Amino acid sequence: MKLWQKNNCATAEVDRFTVGRDREMDMYLAEADVLGSLAHTRMLETIGLLTAAELADVQRELKAIYKEMEAGEFRIEDDMEDIHSQVELMLTRKIGDTGKKIHSGRSRNDQVLVDLRIYLRREIYRIVMGTKCLFDTLQGLAERHKGVLMPGYTHLQIAMPSSFGLWFGAFAESLVDDLTMMEAAYRVCNKNPLGSAAGYGSSFPLNREMTTELLGFDTLSYNVVYAQMGRGKTERVLAQAMSSIAATLNKLATDNCLFLSQNFAFIAYPPELTTGSSIMPHKKNPDVWELMRSKCNRLMALPNEIALMTANLPTGYFRDLQLLKEVLFPAIQTLKECIGMADYMLRHIEVKTDILDDPKYDYLFSVEVVNKLVLDGVPFREAYRRVGLDIENGTYKPSREVHHTHAGSIGNLCLDRVNALMTAALEKFDFDRFIRAEEELTR
Amino acid sequence: MKLWQKNNCATAEVDRFTVGRDREMDMYLAEADVLGSLAHTRMLETIGLLTAAELADVQRELKAIYKEMEAGEFRIEDDMEDIHSQVELMLTRKIGDTGKKIHSGRSRNDQVLVDLRIYLRREIYRIVMGTKCLFDTLQGLAERHKGVLMPGYTHLQIAMPSSFGLWFGAFAESLVDDLTMMEAAYRVCNKNPLGSAAGYGSSFPLNREMTTELLGFDTLSYNVVYAQMGRGKTERVLAQAMSSIAATLNKLATDNCLFLSQNFAFIAYPPELTTGSSIMPHKKNPDVWELMRSKCNRLMALPNEIALMTANLPTGYFRDLQLLKEVLFPAIQTLKECIGMADYMLRHIEVKTDILDDPKYDYLFSVEVVNKLVLDGVPFREAYRRVGLDIENGTYKPSREVHHTHAGSIGNLCLDRVNALMTAALEKFDFDRFIRAEEELTR
Amino acid sequence: MKLWQKNNCATAEVDRFTVGRDREMDMYLAEADVLGSLAHTRMLETIGLLTAAELADVQRELKAIYKEMEAGEFRIEDDMEDIHSQVELMLTRKIGDTGKKIHSGRSRNDQVLVDLRIYLRREIYRIVMGTKCLFDTLQGLAERHKGVLMPGYTHLQIAMPSSFGLWFGAFAESLVDDLTMMEAAYRVCNKNPLGSAAGYGSSFPLNREMTTELLGFDTLSYNVVYAQMGRGKTERVLAQAMSSIAATLNKLATDNCLFLSQNFAFIAYPPELTTGSSIMPHKKNPDVWELMRSKCNRLMALPNEIALMTANLPTGYFRDLQLLKEVLFPAIQTLKECIGMADYMLRHIEVKTDILDDPKYDYLFSVEVVNKLVLDGVPFREAYRRVGLDIENGTYKPSREVHHTHAGSIGNLCLDRVNALMTAALEKFDFDRFIRAEEELTR
Amino acid sequence: MKLWQKNNCATAEVDRFTVGRDREMDMYLAEADVLGSLAHTRMLETIGLLTAAELADVQRELKAIYKEMEAGEFRIEDDMEDIHSQVELMLTRKIGDTGKKIHSGRSRNDQVLVDLRIYLRREIYRIVMGTKCLFDTLQGLAERHKGVLMPGYTHLQIAMPSSFGLWFGAFAESLVDDLTMMEAAYRVCNKNPLGSAAGYGSSFPLNREMTTELLGFDTLSYNVVYAQMGRGKTERVLAQAMSSIAATLNKLATDNCLFLSQNFAFIAYPPELTTGSSIMPHKKNPDVWELMRSKCNRLMALPNEIALMTANLPTGYFRDLQLLKEVLFPAIQTLKECIGMADYMLRHIEVKTDILDDPKYDYLFSVEVVNKLVLDGVPFREAYRRVGLDIENGTYKPSREVHHTHAGSIGNLCLDRVNALMTAALEKFDFDRFIRAEEELTR
Repeated sequence: MKLWQKNNCATAEVDRFTVGRDREMDMYLAEADVLGSLAHTRMLETIGLLTAAELADVQRELKAIYKEMEAGEFRIEDDMEDIHSQVELMLTRKIGDTGKKIHSGRSRNDQVLVDLRIYLRREIYRIVMGTKCLFDTLQGLAERHKGVLMPGYTHLQIAMPSSFGLWFGAFAESLVDDLTMMEAAYRVCNKNPLGSAAGYGSSFPLNREMTTELLGFDTLSYNVVYAQMGRGKTERVLAQAMSSIAATLNKLATDNCLFLSQNFAFIAYPPELTTGSSIMPHKKNPDVWELMRSKCNRLMALPNEIALMTANLPTGYFRDLQLLKEVLFPAIQTLKECIGMADYMLRHIEVKTDILDDPKYDYLFSVEVVNKLVLDGVPFREAYRRVGLDIENGTYKPSREVHHTHAGSIGNLCLDRVNALMTAALEKFDFDRFIRAEEELTR
Repeated sequence: MKLWQKNNCATAEVDRFTVGRDREMDMYLAEADVLGSLAHTRMLETIGLLTAAELADVQRELKAIYKEMEAGEFRIEDDMEDIHSQVELMLTRKIGDTGKKIHSGRSRNDQVLVDLRIYLRREIYRIVMGTKCLFDTLQGLAERHKGVLMPGYTHLQIAMPSSFGLWFGAFAESLVDDLTMMEAAYRVCNKNPLGSAAGYGSSFPLNREMTTELLGFDTLSYNVVYAQMGRGKTERVLAQAMSSIAATLNKLATDNCLFLSQNFAFIAYPPELTTGSSIMPHKKNPDVWELMRSKCNRLMALPNEIALMTANLPTGYFRDLQLLKEVLFPAIQTLKECIGMADYMLRHIEVKTDILDDPKYDYLFSVEVVNKLVLDGVPFREAYRRVGLDIENGTYKPSREVHHTHAGSIGNLCLDRVNALMTAALEKFDFDRFIRAEEELTR
Repeated sequence: MKLWQKNNCATAEVDRFTVGRDREMDMYLAEADVLGSLAHTRMLETIGLLTAAELADVQRELKAIYKEMEAGEFRIEDDMEDIHSQVELMLTRKIGDTGKKIHSGRSRNDQVLVDLRIYLRREIYRIVMGTKCLFDTLQGLAERHKGVLMPGYTHLQIAMPSSFGLWFGAFAESLVDDLTMMEAAYRVCNKNPLGSAAGYGSSFPLNREMTTELLGFDTLSYNVVYAQMGRGKTERVLAQAMSSIAATLNKLATDNCLFLSQNFAFIAYPPELTTGSSIMPHKKNPDVWELMRSKCNRLMALPNEIALMTANLPTGYFRDLQLLKEVLFPAIQTLKECIGMADYMLRHIEVKTDILDDPKYDYLFSVEVVNKLVLDGVPFREAYRRVGLDIENGTYKPSREVHHTHAGSIGNLCLDRVNALMTAALEKFDFDRFIRAEEELTR
Repeated sequence: MKLWQKNNCATAEVDRFTVGRDREMDMYLAEADVLGSLAHTRMLETIGLLTAAELADVQRELKAIYKEMEAGEFRIEDDMEDIHSQVELMLTRKIGDTGKKIHSGRSRNDQVLVDLRIYLRREIYRIVMGTKCLFDTLQGLAERHKGVLMPGYTHLQIAMPSSFGLWFGAFAESLVDDLTMMEAAYRVCNKNPLGSAAGYGSSFPLNREMTTELLGFDTLSYNVVYAQMGRGKTERVLAQAMSSIAATLNKLATDNCLFLSQNFAFIAYPPELTTGSSIMPHKKNPDVWELMRSKCNRLMALPNEIALMTANLPTGYFRDLQLLKEVLFPAIQTLKECIGMADYMLRHIEVKTDILDDPKYDYLFSVEVVNKLVLDGVPFREAYRRVGLDIENGTYKPSREVHHTHAGSIGNLCLDRVNALMTAALEKFDFDRFIRAEEELTR
């Protein structure tokens, strides 16, 4: 058995170590990279660094490459280091040395920065769209099951009557707040870093406002040193916003796992969505929810990982930051999957309608009974004493009816108001701005 | 020596264990608690749970307690468990059993929830005001030192010319984005949870819109189950926004520590702001910046700590959440201190104006020289070749002049535009809404 | 209302910022500091930096101070910066300038390093002793309740028969492994850093082996640069070992919270150890376990916080490291409290003996029935088919008897073997070495 | 442009979601899985669950599969869910239904548990061997460059003379302590969980001591509930030990990045190990060290990620734990790569021998000069005053000679003693135990 042998590390391994998973990660950035170049070259022509003819060539070929990417036919060839080299290679194959001019007035640093932001705002868009679908599913379930009561717990002790309407609706409303954080991340992200070069600007008379407009950014990251500081910060801020959705899904998954236990048995799923056993026919393992809970915990660990990778680093670019791509990009895919899977599962949930028939839950209503007496004019202390006595004497008989009427309570979920909050949250994103700009650039 | 003896834990220790630092933490919530009661009781009167006379008594005494708090004379007595009990005690001493009625239609849970949000929005206000001061200091320094060049580094290798204007300005612009995250946290925070009771609402016909209006909240946390979910979430979201400012300060502190090293010697501070030694007269230990760096790292660890404390918990209140107070409240104080201390230090910074005279920095200008040739019509490759040759032959003589003109570059910092971004960011907070509401309540 | 006013930070605030909670934290180090000085001065005399008479004076007074500390009478006076200054002051009051000589051949850095390690090894001792008590309680409970069956869950689904013997015993055995990690932390900690001065050694001919012997350290941190690197590392390693115990307690607490829910109702505690309500008499809120769960999560966040505070720092001392004291020291107290409280709670636990009478748990035994048929000679597939059929037909009637005989199973807990593992784990610590050394020094 | 479309999630996606990267991860476990089965089946025969003839068939075919794995020819086929199914399939192709009997008396749970521990102890072995190589390289460099002085910093301020001997040696000694933590992780890991079935044991009379012996485990995880608790705990404990090495490498990398900066220029690497630029010939970007720093930060974030994934989970298996494989396994590869790469880089490091000729470093020696006067009999305060005066008057002229003689100082590195510590650390692992057992099983 040869468990170990000394590593005869050659220069080839150094290359492998430094390149890492960069080519794989750069595939995520491919379309963004072409979009950046489409805008940058149009600007270059206006300041005399490209002729009109050169620009026409470059634009035509970049658009062709973009179409290839949209069609899923684009690849980074084996000996190419990254997306930027691959695009340049494809250009020079077609239009010769003019292809290399797309790098004028840029450095690798601001090219990656702008790629990242274009890519990330698109992913934010997708996350938000998926979240909206999940929200709609939850609101629909809340409406449908608003009359089905369930126990409400504090300290995991049976406490007060609740309802499936409340339970589903709570997660829907949680997503609205999650989008507030996501919108902030979007605002931080949707600023143009192009023109910051290696983080110290350029002696070319770049027109940064023009590329900002062309790429549909809200504004610029003005200060070029700050533009470079955005690396690491943008990723962390987005990861934090993602972790907020993940926290909501984590709690949703935890509740599902608990409520599926035979000791609760509040909900059920069709057999194909749980895992069973023929000699343990009761067993319905909630694998999907367990994995979602765990994946969401990984997502919640993400901002901390980014913080560690960037802590105590001085100003300026460091290669450390390259690894953020492989930390963040797969996490974005995971989040989108989790959102979609939660939506899918919930569209198949079955809720048990007779939970409170179990006498175990009778005490749920003791506060209700006290409050009813109070509303009927009995002083609170006296009402409380009477109910306590009934319970002690075994004469306590709750009606199991709930009359909650205030805003947000069992009888008055305010789903329309929560819908309105979501609509307002979505409108603040104004995704159209960048979508139209990208369409115009690639047309 | 008696290093250890078996703990003879008595019930008293159980009490100590469960109460913990709650009384200390509740002092932070004192004013918020009275504000909540002022609004809640006005609402109770409108739904018949308090008479007009009772309301008048309660309001008068609550306002008196609030004044005591503002004057710094309020204390939680030794045998009181928390702020709520203390306020109730003071009321009943004055107006008898009517004092106890402030708890009608509330539970301890939503009382804490509303206290927290009132307290936290005030702290957000203070953090934002402090951040604005620091921003102004940084912008002022950027303007004052915009002509002083310094080396710009990538990979900590001497790379390109930079300036103190860029350096100071970068941190100022960073704070603008940090406030974007803070504004999102504020929006999540500034919603009324009052009326959610123990997390499942109440059978009393509470008017939650009225308390929302009275307390100056933007809107309600409608769903009562979600209102309770806000515990843990609000804290985490705020901690994330705080960590964003902390990350900016961490980098500022790291740069300061580096630039104060004799191996850089770019900046200096008056002797009373560093620590020295008479036989090592060169030594200027940047203790303040080091401690700030470390404190900011602690702040950056905070969201993760909160995530761990709340991970995998099902819906509903758990006593676990009580500890969030002692995790978050001192951290808020730390952040405010760090912001103030950074401001104070920077107002005493001295920058070295002749850094680039050291020939070590000559190569900084090589890209400038190439670009200049390109702008003069020399093809890029030829320009690059010439400069490379000059360097090789030792005939390279840079002019040490920098002509950067594009937006955000050394010669065009766009400080006014960044100021405008800050103004816009501040306006979105509309703190006036809650400040006016609180004034109206306590008048 | 004055929510905020600009901080007019004066030099006094700089002092407050830099000193922080140091005086409070240094009280933990007081005895350790005197022990270090007792050993250091004995060594100084052997290399001629103290006369025999000076040594006698210093030793007498240091021992007197140590006695004062043991009696709880020692205080750090208000204008003293730290423990070291306080001890020096007390010495010079008694024996004049000779008192200052205790600093010869030392710097503040290695003095703190040695104080920390002496202090931490004592705390490790206390943690280990407390853990042993908890272990004994768990083993005792496992023995007492080894015959009481309970359901075993996978995926929180009812799965297989388990027992309280297994449940208690599992946590006991977990603590054995936790002490393996703790012993490693102890080994890393129990090395002498004294003599490393500011991290670069000294030109005095210090006898570091002598102080190693006198202080009961296993060996030296030889390399003086490494000795200084130990700051941050020792703390992190100990925090990791602490987090291992915390993880065991976290799971124990989580199980307790779950099993106390009315939906499980496997265990109970006397009323004074839970929190109830007279109109919800069923409610037994497990506040102690919830707080323990949360406190243990904080402890589990600790190594990460330390990692963040020390990430990306180059070699050499930084003031950043000072804050580790206020991060670690209170956490040690928390861990000891949690261990003691878990022990106390468990000594009052009541277990329900008829859990499996509930027909909900009948399917627990299906695997048992299959296996019994197999042992009786029925081929596995046939046995499995038969039981599946019985279940389907409603003719499945398990005996509810369990015959598990292999090592570590319900019927054969191997508690004596686990006791032996614990004994072996404890012996490896050889705490006597340092305890005897400390006694000899202070006698 | 189609940025987003609603996910029409089908059952196929549920499968993809639950299987995840399991097949990829299971390839790491392949050899371990066969080893476990080799031991388990030998035990089954002794308790009558396999005949001698069946055992012979199974052993022959399992050994053949093992050889295939060693030769790198083993694959998990496309429609196989995991390693266990693949091995069973290959067995049944050869020996029919007998192949399925390898699962008798086991569940998937304890099979994965034992696979993990066998796999992890092998990886620990590899990590330790790699660490020993790196240690030797560092010790060799310390010996070679023990006479080359460099500045020692505190607070990144020039403080005291240091040497490359001290610098290299410090990291070597750090690795010794790191292996102490790793040995503890190995002890926790090297215990037999086989026989715990789904976490509640089995009614078969399994001989767990026999499989313990056959697989070369130190002892058993006795309690079957605890054996299952080991999932998550083993991973966390190992991740913590790994993070200790990562912390050492992180600091080594940070120092390298700093010392390569032109502002320090203490070291150099051959051009092929750094990244340069022809017009910035001074630029030597330390990409390898930067990436290592970042990778090590990711490793340091790992224990926290595992803690989050397992926090607040009750006893018993959850599918959450499956994801630990994809969190831990790639991290192990990364750590081994980083150790190998650090070794490779250091074998090419060049150290600058005239650093202290720069007058900037003159003050380094001021403490030396004071101490020399003291040793010559001048009272400390007088010596200190004289040197301070010389410095003030500009008459300070240090000799730039260092006479440190005590253990662990510049002049007395004690490399042999540190070597002895490493030897002792390595011997405690007794890897031979498991290596011999594995060889015996597969022979």
